[in-house]
Amino acid sequence: MIRDSYAPDRVEYFALMGIPLVEPGDDLTGLIVAALASNNMTLMEGDIVVVAQKVVSKAEGRIVTLADVKPSEEARLRAAETDKDPALVQVILDESNEVVRQHHGVVIVEHRLGFVMANAGVDQSNSNSGEVILLPEDPDASAARLATSLQEIGGQNVAVIVSDSIGRAWRNGTVGHALGVAGMRALIDLRETIDLFERPMQVTEVALADEIAAGASALMGQGAEAKPVVIVRGFNLVPDDEASVQTLLRSRDLDLFR
Amino acid sequence: MIRDSYAPDRVEYFALMGIPLVEPGDDLTGLIVAALASNNMTLMEGDIVVVAQKVVSKAEGRIVTLADVKPSEEARLRAAETDKDPALVQVILDESNEVVRQHHGVVIVEHRLGFVMANAGVDQSNSNSGEVILLPEDPDASAARLATSLQEIGGQNVAVIVSDSIGRAWRNGTVGHALGVAGMRALIDLRETIDLFERPMQVTEVALADEIAAGASALMGQGAEAKPVVIVRGFNLVPDDEASVQTLLRSRDLDLFR
Repeated sequence: MIRDSYAPDRVEYFALMGIPLVEPGDDLTGLIVAALASNNMTLMEGDIVVVAQKVVSKAEGRIVTLADVKPSEEARLRAAETDKDPALVQVILDESNEVVRQHHGVVIVEHRLGFVMANAGVDQSNSNSGEVILLPEDPDASAARLATSLQEIGGQNVAVIVSDSIGRAWRNGTVGHALGVAGMRALIDLRETIDLFERPMQVTEVALADEIAAGASALMGQGAEAKPVVIVRGFNLVPDDEASVQTLLRSRDLDLFR
Repeated sequence: MIRDSYAPDRVEYFALMGIPLVEPGDDLTGLIVAALASNNMTLMEGDIVVVAQKVVSKAEGRIVTLADVKPSEEARLRAAETDKDPALVQVILDESNEVVRQHHGVVIVEHRLGFVMANAGVDQSNSNSGEVILLPEDPDASAARLATSLQEIGGQNVAVIVSDSIGRAWRNGTVGHALGVAGMRALIDLRETIDLFERPMQVTEVALADEIAAGASALMGQGAEAKPVVIVRGFNLVPDDEASVQTLLRSRDLDLFR
């Protein structure tokens, strides 16, 4: 029987200071290692490195110039219905499996990776005028590459979460969520756990990677691309070589809200 | 212009150890103060005390014995449709404004306080057999009472979040959310914020109390009622005498998913 071995008694979150504006082609691992040094920090075994999606996307060159986009008829129609830029809507559609809802100013889609989110995560803030930033091609793979390269340089096994600020169906404001995960189990299964009265738990799964992404997001701030990396220390990691954010996504047949 | 003044560079989360099983009528403030002492901790100005809903509810006596509940016809019908206990469904309906969705094993409602959640937050785990635990009558008021009494005893201004583990529409696993808030602004408005290219931010609101509740929930564990209180240290609190979880709830006319 597991008694919450995943839940530590004390954790710390540190935002790395001084990470420069990230440009396409930048070596994100190198930037993190340099920032760790200038922050007088060393990664420790079991640390979780939470990296904002936007800098991962920028380093990977996931940038589209809207002037280069030719909107389809569908994009023009939806753009008119939602009062958005037709080129931007085209970019959103290109990143999506389907449109789930649309409303003035917002198109909620199923992103091609399965995330239900506004505007397919396509971001206009903190990018040069006329450019938009897409989600990474494969955030799990981005996280795995970072975890591997950080381990190669420093020697410590670390987990990596690529995070993004996402809106919710019934709540105002954004909250950090995991978009990609490496080196830790993203979803903790408590079906083996008993409660204090020795009966099986009613709540059976905890979205640990989302809870950690949320905690880290509170340090990143929204305007401050200068704090896109947060080190989380103290979790009893459940290692998982096949870690994937896909474990956090509800399967379509269990979805009651589409 | 605000430049993410809410977002600190370093925060710590401490779970208080040794809080006993909470019973109706218990003085939760006294239990927290005693646990702080036995953990060799003192609250500091600006600390956020995150308290699991279940112990707040228990201390407030929000317990119903299912054998005492007489299910209505609607409760019997929905119980048959969802394969749940008719008395439990009656308790859920009594706590709800409306049923939003139902499915095998789950009734998703709008709780009378506005939360869209499974089973109205009514909990069968970690309670004595045949009893269920309701959400607090008014979690904002519960949080405010705790903040006031902790301030009276220790002298420090602290914020309090009453948290609960809640499921999401499109993601597996539960995540900590705020059910009640006192002493801090729950929703941070960034409309005055500029991005790094000096333009207004696209994302305009951050659900800070939810992010902190999520971070704290990762320490509480699910089976462990022994860790229902987490101290969060390091946030630059935005004081708010009129703090309320209601600011986190999307108004019905902006809800695209009902």
